[in-house]
Amino acid sequence: MKPEKGIKPKIGVLTCSDRASQGVYEDVSGKAIIATLREYLVTDWEAVYRLVPDDQESVEKALKQLADEEECSLIVTTGGTGPALRDITPEATEAVCTKMLPGFGEQMRAVSLQYVPTAILSRQTAGVRGKTLIINLPGKPKSIRECLDAVFPAVPYCVDLIGGAYLETNEAVIKAFRPKV
Amino acid sequence: MKPEKGIKPKIGVLTCSDRASQGVYEDVSGKAIIATLREYLVTDWEAVYRLVPDDQESVEKALKQLADEEECSLIVTTGGTGPALRDITPEATEAVCTKMLPGFGEQMRAVSLQYVPTAILSRQTAGVRGKTLIINLPGKPKSIRECLDAVFPAVPYCVDLIGGAYLETNEAVIKAFRPKV
Amino acid sequence: MKPEKGIKPKIGVLTCSDRASQGVYEDVSGKAIIATLREYLVTDWEAVYRLVPDDQESVEKALKQLADEEECSLIVTTGGTGPALRDITPEATEAVCTKMLPGFGEQMRAVSLQYVPTAILSRQTAGVRGKTLIINLPGKPKSIRECLDAVFPAVPYCVDLIGGAYLETNEAVIKAFRPKV
Repeated sequence: MKPEKGIKPKIGVLTCSDRASQGVYEDVSGKAIIATLREYLVTDWEAVYRLVPDDQESVEKALKQLADEEECSLIVTTGGTGPALRDITPEATEAVCTKMLPGFGEQMRAVSLQYVPTAILSRQTAGVRGKTLIINLPGKPKSIRECLDAVFPAVPYCVDLIGGAYLETNEAVIKAFRPKV
Repeated sequence: MKPEKGIKPKIGVLTCSDRASQGVYEDVSGKAIIATLREYLVTDWEAVYRLVPDDQESVEKALKQLADEEECSLIVTTGGTGPALRDITPEATEAVCTKMLPGFGEQMRAVSLQYVPTAILSRQTAGVRGKTLIINLPGKPKSIRECLDAVFPAVPYCVDLIGGAYLETNEAVIKAFRPKV
Repeated sequence: MKPEKGIKPKIGVLTCSDRASQGVYEDVSGKAIIATLREYLVTDWEAVYRLVPDDQESVEKALKQLADEEECSLIVTTGGTGPALRDITPEATEAVCTKMLPGFGEQMRAVSLQYVPTAILSRQTAGVRGKTLIINLPGKPKSIRECLDAVFPAVPYCVDLIGGAYLETNEAVIKAFRPKV
């Protein structure tokens, strides 16, 4: 779908972190995602940022609000994808999505495995809620960039397929792939 | 299980497509699968072909009928594996199977990723219903061949393990692997 | 968590096999796992060994008992991961776990695929129950070692994250990776 005039596509950035949400430390990861997406996209877009603690109800509520009320075409989460008790981002994502896209998690883990053997501990996934694509990223800024670089070439076409906004990338930074039908 | 005399193994080919089922275009994909399997197998087999629209009830019903009534040892589906609203083949497959085989989807996505970054959008999977192995393939003829070539070496042994027909391949085209126990 | 003085970490080894549990043949696989873990770990640990038939209730009961009563930090299963009717170890594992770790199965299948195309038939997975990490391995001794070598570098850190015992490896045999936080 080509963008309607005057309406900026929205992208949600959701940081899931007990400590950042309590102000124990600054949310570097959410900022890193916004900066990376600014580099990637030539389409003018609006960032909708949220910071919530690692409890499943808060994460689900934020995802629903970003998808249904803010009408984000894409939501990128950071944090809460590990095996620890408070890591519940993948469960919250699965709970709010109607379709899961296992290829995103597989590909991000495969890429992270080139750097650290503990990449297999990440449970990150992706899925679709209505016209919104939701992608989980890990919490560490370095891994965030590796993972986004690995999957973003498929993101604009996926958002097309689910009826979201038309996103154009800066091909000098990252090349979106849209198959000729 | 060695084949009983006089009984041909059946293989179901199920095309899931709104447009092909309405006659908007010809089902090239279903034909491509049958042609590929004719090349692969030296065992004499019977194709049972079905074409249904992309709604979950129709796909589930066709899968059950091919497995339970036609007693197909293998069902190969094409179409409906993407992220769009009407893509529900993986959900229908999971709904009728008692066991899922995630390795098929992982391997097919890994192979398709060598050609297009949008391979991660495919949600194709495989599973077992009774004595029937069900495998989802993408909708595009080119991807169909890539995916079948990647997983078929494991198919005859899998069908052995679930009590289906004994399938022999033409080793000049594709080599089935049966581990020595 | 550093180990409390005088308390040895426990590791459960659970063989799921109808025939071995009936005494039809010796359980070579369970012994192979214990021998491999003895090589890997310099931490003094206690093996808690169980042998059960391939029925889901028995496997679930054994997993719960090893996790909740024996307080094993790690349980490694062998057998029952294929597509056959009696292969139910992954289902039992999923039923007792609160969190699944799909990266383990993906990585073990990817490694086994370097040896045999039938690796995609393995449905092995991993998950967390309380402070216990549960990992499914295939039944064949050769594949067991390949799979353990592939995933064990991530195991000690995973057990740290879920609050289990502190495990140290013999780095000449296998190098555990613990990211600097």
